[in-house]
Amino acid sequence: MQTKDALRVAVLGCGSVGSQVVRLLTEQADDLAMRAGVPLELAGVAVRRLDAPRDVEVPAHLLTTDATALVTSGVDLVVEVIGGIEPARSLILAALESGASVVTANKALLAEDGATLFEAAEKAGRDLYYEAAVAGAIPIIRPLRESLVGDTVTRVLGIVNGTTNYILDKMDSSGAGFADALGEAQELGYAEADPTADVEGFDAAAKAAILASLAFHTRVTAADVHREGISDVTAADVRSAADMGAVVKLLAICELRDGPDGQAVSARVHPAMIPRSHPLASVREAYNAVFVESRAAGRLMFYGPGAGGAPTASAVLGDLVTIARHHRAGTRGAGESAYTARPVLPMGETLTRYHVAIDVEDRAGVLALVATAFAEHGVSIQTVRQEGRGADAQLVVVSHRATDAQLAATVAHLQQMDIVREVTSVMRVEGETE
Amino acid sequence: MQTKDALRVAVLGCGSVGSQVVRLLTEQADDLAMRAGVPLELAGVAVRRLDAPRDVEVPAHLLTTDATALVTSGVDLVVEVIGGIEPARSLILAALESGASVVTANKALLAEDGATLFEAAEKAGRDLYYEAAVAGAIPIIRPLRESLVGDTVTRVLGIVNGTTNYILDKMDSSGAGFADALGEAQELGYAEADPTADVEGFDAAAKAAILASLAFHTRVTAADVHREGISDVTAADVRSAADMGAVVKLLAICELRDGPDGQAVSARVHPAMIPRSHPLASVREAYNAVFVESRAAGRLMFYGPGAGGAPTASAVLGDLVTIARHHRAGTRGAGESAYTARPVLPMGETLTRYHVAIDVEDRAGVLALVATAFAEHGVSIQTVRQEGRGADAQLVVVSHRATDAQLAATVAHLQQMDIVREVTSVMRVEGETE
Repeated sequence: MQTKDALRVAVLGCGSVGSQVVRLLTEQADDLAMRAGVPLELAGVAVRRLDAPRDVEVPAHLLTTDATALVTSGVDLVVEVIGGIEPARSLILAALESGASVVTANKALLAEDGATLFEAAEKAGRDLYYEAAVAGAIPIIRPLRESLVGDTVTRVLGIVNGTTNYILDKMDSSGAGFADALGEAQELGYAEADPTADVEGFDAAAKAAILASLAFHTRVTAADVHREGISDVTAADVRSAADMGAVVKLLAICELRDGPDGQAVSARVHPAMIPRSHPLASVREAYNAVFVESRAAGRLMFYGPGAGGAPTASAVLGDLVTIARHHRAGTRGAGESAYTARPVLPMGETLTRYHVAIDVEDRAGVLALVATAFAEHGVSIQTVRQEGRGADAQLVVVSHRATDAQLAATVAHLQQMDIVREVTSVMRVEGETE
Repeated sequence: MQTKDALRVAVLGCGSVGSQVVRLLTEQADDLAMRAGVPLELAGVAVRRLDAPRDVEVPAHLLTTDATALVTSGVDLVVEVIGGIEPARSLILAALESGASVVTANKALLAEDGATLFEAAEKAGRDLYYEAAVAGAIPIIRPLRESLVGDTVTRVLGIVNGTTNYILDKMDSSGAGFADALGEAQELGYAEADPTADVEGFDAAAKAAILASLAFHTRVTAADVHREGISDVTAADVRSAADMGAVVKLLAICELRDGPDGQAVSARVHPAMIPRSHPLASVREAYNAVFVESRAAGRLMFYGPGAGGAPTASAVLGDLVTIARHHRAGTRGAGESAYTARPVLPMGETLTRYHVAIDVEDRAGVLALVATAFAEHGVSIQTVRQEGRGADAQLVVVSHRATDAQLAATVAHLQQMDIVREVTSVMRVEGETE
């Protein structure tokens, strides 16, 4: 590896990302060689069908349907952009065992079984890089893994799913309901025909697991992440947020919490209201952003396109060049850092705030009864707004921070009360430093 | 270096940054050791006066006034946070020659004579890292050097000076003039008693040189950067920007330009109007942000505190841990990448747009005469707004892109015209992708 011979790169998958990786590897070969200190040579591209139409021309002799043979053929670097759990996991493990380093954009796999991959990379003495797995082109993995490694990260708030941000932004700007905004996103290609992975928060939860693991030097898997999607967010919720100077976003939230038994981690994905003055509030359309709070550095934000073939390929190429430099120097980068083994708090113990809109009978004493219900569960009220309308009135309550369990019990209690016609909206409020 | 023995760290300077570096090295020693794979041990702190008051308690035996002896005493890592050209340069060179790697926050030195430092690091086979030199805690050096290294960066727009951003933000939000806003910034500690380095753009120009060098893989020095400060920005300029939905910011602008003889670089610092819809427009108070445009990744932004002891120390510690990992692995990170040796364009050849406010006689044909003056210099007008007031009228012209030389010639021409009473405001307009 100490020679100036070209490093051989195998690309697994030639869809929207893979084709852009192949294009950039070819078009920018000279620059990449100068930057890496060694040429990068495309050794092969594994595809499902040799004759499928694709966005880039790949010489026929480089195409193969035998991905396993390709990754074990003595290549130096493997780019995995197939996605999904299998065969991606087996191919990555085979590549590492064969002595190749790996760049992957596979958030689902990393969030489900990252430990297996990291251990295999460690054992093989090879690199496993994955900048493209979270927030597309936005450099967030490397800043967490290296730039902030001398600091203590206390919170990460991310808008890490472009589809849901597009839908919520559309609802905010046009007053549309969820179904209409989803339809428009689908028409424009921002949402898939089956939008479940995005809309129900699975994609964001995988990214939250990866971010929490990195930020807090522990292992968090997708199963540890509390997950709520945006399909229940209504136009009324979005209006109600606007009334209080806030906007609804689907957030991936990772927090470090001091507890009686040491530090623990909270990781969750749900829609939340954040103040319009918060830097994340101005993230429009399908853009992504990750907001990081740390003890010494303070408040940082990383913003950019969270998906798309070329942006994701940019992140993959950055990792490829970094690893190529390592190969040339006969070394590798930092591996997984999970030395703290911090417990993950259940959602009920998460500290958050609630915005609750309640239709109540319009008679004297109603506010006192509602306030008493909050107090009984130990939840302190920050603001309450009362609006009469006909025989009914609407109360909008915003709480101070309490545990999610206390807040959920309060809402359940409200729903049982005679004077409450309906709890019309319940949403968490985030984005304030405490 | 392959042992688990502690790496010895020397800190040069114990002011606002140095004291925070010492504090974090001490308080977070256990975490840093886990993350670096090797303990970091404070070997000494060089100060000017042993008995000066400082923000952190340093054991007396670690303090020294002999910085040269400290850096040549066999330490592994040297943190230089003295600032200025000398003795910082000699100390960094002595440290590298003695086999230590160096972390520096010294933008002035890097911008004036980075080549000497990088060559010394290369010769010594040691690392020279400087994340803290640009935009404080915001990770921008590492993303440019590694994350985007597989991409082609075409433009960097940075708000990289907190003092001037505070002043301009105050002028925008309160309508204050420059002098009042500066006075308030000085009272609050955001501006120094002698604010020249910030207000006249010297600090931002040094950072522009560093950013342009990194982004375009070439050498750009502070002397290559066209520099204009904000002391001539008036309350009327800020109002005029607001009228067109824009805000005035001091920008560090680095651009890659295709020219007849290949690619060239433009690097400049000046106040400019940017649309309020641009992500940089919402960067308030003393915050910094760097906006990056690249071919594949698209539009990225990095936001956070650009100065301050603890934030800057966070960036220094990140570099320290990264270098410690390299030491442990017996390797080093990527050095300077200046393989393109691109020429830097003179300011006159820079492409930009102008906002020009002109007091003219209020009579028929004035607009035609003014438009003719623009046309004579080959400058196309995008919009013109005319407001009568008494015997005079005001014209506000916003041009399309032209060279700075054409625009400057147009303004000089206008100032000669009989019907022009005064050119009251000239400012560049930036922040639109073309």
